[in-house]
Amino acid sequence: MGRWEPDARGRLAKAALELYGERGYEQTTVAEIARRAGLTERTFFRHYADKREVLFGGTPSLQDLFVQAVTEAPPATTPIDALALGLDAAGEMFVDRRDFARKRQAVITANAELQERELIKLASLSAALADALRARGVPEPAASLTAEAGVAVFKVGFERWVSPGEQREMAPLMRESLDALKAVTAGGRAS
Amino acid sequence: MGRWEPDARGRLAKAALELYGERGYEQTTVAEIARRAGLTERTFFRHYADKREVLFGGTPSLQDLFVQAVTEAPPATTPIDALALGLDAAGEMFVDRRDFARKRQAVITANAELQERELIKLASLSAALADALRARGVPEPAASLTAEAGVAVFKVGFERWVSPGEQREMAPLMRESLDALKAVTAGGRAS
Repeated sequence: MGRWEPDARGRLAKAALELYGERGYEQTTVAEIARRAGLTERTFFRHYADKREVLFGGTPSLQDLFVQAVTEAPPATTPIDALALGLDAAGEMFVDRRDFARKRQAVITANAELQERELIKLASLSAALADALRARGVPEPAASLTAEAGVAVFKVGFERWVSPGEQREMAPLMRESLDALKAVTAGGRAS
Repeated sequence: MGRWEPDARGRLAKAALELYGERGYEQTTVAEIARRAGLTERTFFRHYADKREVLFGGTPSLQDLFVQAVTEAPPATTPIDALALGLDAAGEMFVDRRDFARKRQAVITANAELQERELIKLASLSAALADALRARGVPEPAASLTAEAGVAVFKVGFERWVSPGEQREMAPLMRESLDALKAVTAGGRAS
């Protein structure tokens, strides 16, 4: 092999998600994923380190986009508004990816080890956001609290976006979640 | 054995924390913990399922106290004020426990598996708080966001409480963290 395979990475991800859904994540092998995608195991390993990375391979770029938007917000932007720009940037990454995200979510929900991995991913995002906010001159504990709030809004907004029947795009759902957090912390009844 | 050992649980916890600090968590065995405490392995296993539970054995009661305070807040209490009552209740649990908590934190920080366990504990606390808030009639996404905000405030307040040189009690640090989150989400510069 070694020749160029059109969208091999995408085909492998699609095949993996299908198999994880049909047989369970634990029971699926890399050989089966490659076969389903019409590719070789060697091609799989050129794109992913292991079968778990198919589910988490997009994580660094989400974190990078989110953090970059916070870092590049104009200097006069308040911490919460910088966070909102980060949520917008994260939301843009998921346009046209809801079907994949829903299947991925179902696999993760069914597996404790993958849920732990997801929690670690979110903790890493929170730490990177806090770093970016401190670099903007935001003091502690405001930087850590803004970062944690950002991850909370992202998590809740994401869960709504992948929930059955939801058709709105991620960006407005993220903004709505952020507004709901603001209403809650302002002491409203949030009804 | 089988006879009553005065404060066996506390002595085992103290011995375990000493050994985790001296040798590392991975390298410490239950036999060594029991020996250091002047007790038998059998006594250890009457109090803890394994050496990890020495570090996490207090978790159910923290979650119970926190959730109970939210549940029992007067009906007219807003979600964020119910959360504040939960943080007060959690803070009371840690009075006179800072030395233990600092040693525990050092062990957890040094071990990825224990950090994962801590993240799972916090995710479980968030889910339980969201349940309690929904039972109070708080709709979604406000319930989940309030719960996530509560865990964020707890996490940041706890980290400050165990930080070197910090002498204030946990309850005022929790309140201060909650106020900082309110200031951030209100759009202030949080300076």
